[in-house]
Amino acid sequence: MMSLKYAVVGAGALGGYYGGKLAKSGHKVDFLVKNDYDFIKEHGLKVDSVSGDFHLKNVSVFCDSKDMSPSDVVLVCLKTTHNHLLKDLLAPLLHKDSLVILIQNGLGVESDLAKDFPSLNIGGALAQVCAIKVGPGHIRHLDLGKLFIGIHQGNCKPVMLEVLDNFTDAGVVVELIPLALARWHKLIWNIPFNGLSVVLNTTVDKLISNEDTKVLCWELMYDVIEAANYCGSIVKKDFAKGVMSMTEKMTSYSPSMKVDYDNKRDLEIEYIYSRPIAEALAAGYKMKNVSFLEKQLRFLSETH
Amino acid sequence: MMSLKYAVVGAGALGGYYGGKLAKSGHKVDFLVKNDYDFIKEHGLKVDSVSGDFHLKNVSVFCDSKDMSPSDVVLVCLKTTHNHLLKDLLAPLLHKDSLVILIQNGLGVESDLAKDFPSLNIGGALAQVCAIKVGPGHIRHLDLGKLFIGIHQGNCKPVMLEVLDNFTDAGVVVELIPLALARWHKLIWNIPFNGLSVVLNTTVDKLISNEDTKVLCWELMYDVIEAANYCGSIVKKDFAKGVMSMTEKMTSYSPSMKVDYDNKRDLEIEYIYSRPIAEALAAGYKMKNVSFLEKQLRFLSETH
Repeated sequence: MMSLKYAVVGAGALGGYYGGKLAKSGHKVDFLVKNDYDFIKEHGLKVDSVSGDFHLKNVSVFCDSKDMSPSDVVLVCLKTTHNHLLKDLLAPLLHKDSLVILIQNGLGVESDLAKDFPSLNIGGALAQVCAIKVGPGHIRHLDLGKLFIGIHQGNCKPVMLEVLDNFTDAGVVVELIPLALARWHKLIWNIPFNGLSVVLNTTVDKLISNEDTKVLCWELMYDVIEAANYCGSIVKKDFAKGVMSMTEKMTSYSPSMKVDYDNKRDLEIEYIYSRPIAEALAAGYKMKNVSFLEKQLRFLSETH
Repeated sequence: MMSLKYAVVGAGALGGYYGGKLAKSGHKVDFLVKNDYDFIKEHGLKVDSVSGDFHLKNVSVFCDSKDMSPSDVVLVCLKTTHNHLLKDLLAPLLHKDSLVILIQNGLGVESDLAKDFPSLNIGGALAQVCAIKVGPGHIRHLDLGKLFIGIHQGNCKPVMLEVLDNFTDAGVVVELIPLALARWHKLIWNIPFNGLSVVLNTTVDKLISNEDTKVLCWELMYDVIEAANYCGSIVKKDFAKGVMSMTEKMTSYSPSMKVDYDNKRDLEIEYIYSRPIAEALAAGYKMKNVSFLEKQLRFLSETH
């Protein structure tokens, strides 16, 4: 089997880290980036990592996907607020057997992509990683790094297994998972902590050390668990306990949506809040607490 | 009948305005104030009012209720965050027939006072007035001024009617109302607009011009109406429409809780949120939306 050729869309924390790891281990990786194109073209990509720093001096980097050739695997590492761009942006990157993996948060990103590309092989992934972009072409990897990957549609198990193999070779721990369930699992954390930290202008540790907001966190988590069950992803109520104790072990931390808000970037409300609310409602469950928080976030996002 | 002697507790916007109007019309009014005692002792009380400015040069003012003689009517014009002081503070002001009227927001203030003074004549009042304290002993009355007064307990109808008469003489429009119902009515406005303006750091006009927060306002109002009905105060769902159109006619406005928050004063969460939630729960109704907002407010109040 030929070695897979990768394209990575976005060179933020996720694209820079996971794409960088694949490139460093010898895979052909094309990066599609916007603002940082000139910088990466000239200086390459630097990853300061707890598992070993590295610097890729010559990166195959592009600022327009029309200049790129198709890849076997496309890793989408954009914020979901840019997913309306994917239709145009992905077209030149695809051949008939390409697999697109969306390394993004939220629910419904794969099914929205499938509307534009009905016969495309589509997967999704959830990153369990502490990494931040500290500057153009410069990523700091602080902790963890595991990638949970699943298939959404297409007859692509063989290529997916090869992707898993490539990541493992590159030093990234990967696990193949049932995608819908994994997305709901992650929402159980994302929904309370992203939203409340924005609305109450605070950090995760403060949210769970205050007894009132801790109750809100529990209630939001239970709201998500109930929704997951209505939507057919079976999650026990006890799952929330594990999420809470994991969170209690974290140090003071600002969730990605809080970082986005503080940096006046668009918030990922659509796929983290509105879509789960809509899918639960279609399945017969009204996420009352989550809807309350969603509307507060929409107000803040529209007025700040 | 002898002319009633009044005591007014607090010389903020409400105490200064209503107490000032009574004093100006010739009634004997003792003021009990804390921080502004020296100033009022020396300079009196100034009211700049849309219905005519006046300046009371010699005010009967005290800084300790132990120095005061009993009054026939005590008007409590403190923020409810100070109600824990009432037990000690009121005792010297009361004779066996005194009537205490709490001109305060929220639910349950009268029944809490009745725990300390079981046989006291107790009334409550809701002020429909735009007035602010602009400095020590200096009130600015901008608009409206009506006082809705009701009896909570005690055989005090005659003295209450005399109070209404005195207010009318003093140029204050008054209406005798069923107190519990009136308190719920006012909560239908106070609960959405006070809390959301604090949590989302905004003004009332912005809350109702954004479609997401407007939905939240409706949902919070319906939550309050449902609670009122469970608690035996019958309010039609349509009442919310009237509240909303009244609010739409208001100019850009910061509710009292937002002003308190911005000035780092304690928030009236207990009587405006927690008590209605508790009373509704005891009657069999869970105020889910209001509880969500209450917990956010408690977090902000404890951490700011």
